[in-house]
Amino acid sequence: MRNIKLTIEYDGKRYLGWQRLGDSEKTIQGKIESVITQMTTEKIEIIGSGRTDAGTHALGQVANFKTNSEMSLNDMLSFFNRYLPSDIVVKKVEEMPERFHARYNVKGKQYSYYVWNNPIPTAFERYHSFYFPQKLDIAKMNEACEKLEGTHDFIGFSALKKSKKSTTRTIDAITIEQEGNMLHFTFVGNGFLHKMVRILMGTILEIGAGKLPVTIIDEVLEQKVREAAGETAPAQGLFLDEVYY
Amino acid sequence: MRNIKLTIEYDGKRYLGWQRLGDSEKTIQGKIESVITQMTTEKIEIIGSGRTDAGTHALGQVANFKTNSEMSLNDMLSFFNRYLPSDIVVKKVEEMPERFHARYNVKGKQYSYYVWNNPIPTAFERYHSFYFPQKLDIAKMNEACEKLEGTHDFIGFSALKKSKKSTTRTIDAITIEQEGNMLHFTFVGNGFLHKMVRILMGTILEIGAGKLPVTIIDEVLEQKVREAAGETAPAQGLFLDEVYY
Repeated sequence: MRNIKLTIEYDGKRYLGWQRLGDSEKTIQGKIESVITQMTTEKIEIIGSGRTDAGTHALGQVANFKTNSEMSLNDMLSFFNRYLPSDIVVKKVEEMPERFHARYNVKGKQYSYYVWNNPIPTAFERYHSFYFPQKLDIAKMNEACEKLEGTHDFIGFSALKKSKKSTTRTIDAITIEQEGNMLHFTFVGNGFLHKMVRILMGTILEIGAGKLPVTIIDEVLEQKVREAAGETAPAQGLFLDEVYY
Repeated sequence: MRNIKLTIEYDGKRYLGWQRLGDSEKTIQGKIESVITQMTTEKIEIIGSGRTDAGTHALGQVANFKTNSEMSLNDMLSFFNRYLPSDIVVKKVEEMPERFHARYNVKGKQYSYYVWNNPIPTAFERYHSFYFPQKLDIAKMNEACEKLEGTHDFIGFSALKKSKKSTTRTIDAITIEQEGNMLHFTFVGNGFLHKMVRILMGTILEIGAGKLPVTIIDEVLEQKVREAAGETAPAQGLFLDEVYY
């Protein structure tokens, strides 16, 4: 059997997230699987690198599936982009060794979070950023980001109550770039827990707005208590940029 | 009476264009006028710098209206952005001398047109650009743009059949910038006829794709025949960037 890797871009606005639910019409996984069935006449389950929440976007989600189809990679690429809705785009189709697994083989990921930091809202980026009009102290937020970098138990910055698996992760870097009125946060690490980037973002923004002290980061990392951290920032500002293997 | 100038950004996707029609719910002008009525309890007609077509966007449309309201400019700004739908944003509210007229006083305009020039489509910019996957010869398109610059009778590049008013306009500059897979065309001039930028764009793209020779520009300018020019490029790629007074 062939093992096919897909690199996928999607505007998550209309969807309940990556993972297929009962109603396949409203998830990215469901949409892609139904096009694969059309294409190969096989009933196939695709494996994503991980889930994305309802409303979250991706520039480089990765998934794989096995098939007996003999269709060329180029024909597959055209078929996908012809039959998928216009808010889901397959950017790359590659042939992989049999052992490649889109979830197990992940070495790291990059996420972006966009914050529209201006008193006046934005008509164009309203579904692709979080409108946060309050003044933000960038130096304070950079301090918070530095504290978060490194290897820590991030359970207090996740939506998990308990976990049998390790909740220790390494964040290689968090950067903040100012692009006009847009603040662009980038997170690179070996893995992120459920809702971790959004809770980190909510906390960093409350620190920037002066509602929480920078030391809250140490407290949440030590005490591992979700309640001490900031609110969960909305899904619409979050992009899965890239998955590293 | 006070004379108020508005600078307006809008995502034109959901609208029938700028100009109010019977059904005020589907035009930008209609939306803004109904918020002004809410705000001032006056029934007011606003004057736009000019119309924009259904589906066309604006970063800096300008309009003015007269009112007896004593509301501060800041309160007006907040009121607009609170009650307008999220795809229409008032960016600036200014007090003007009585004689200021948003249409009569226009000295020039800048438009942008975005072309997604890649075999793979874009999930995010699909409503804010024209997906044109064919290879384009940028040098040829630049040649066409140079021929268009200057003062000409542009009636052949417009949707007008005949006109009692002059159809001579001056284009100061047309530039092409490559931003990744996006081609960004900018048009600056003292005025543009109905659908002129979209017909110019359609023609420039057909020249770039090798379907029309560069000399078609001279022909249309001399013979003033719409039929000789290229197709009208879709409204969704067009942005009114700025109006000069």
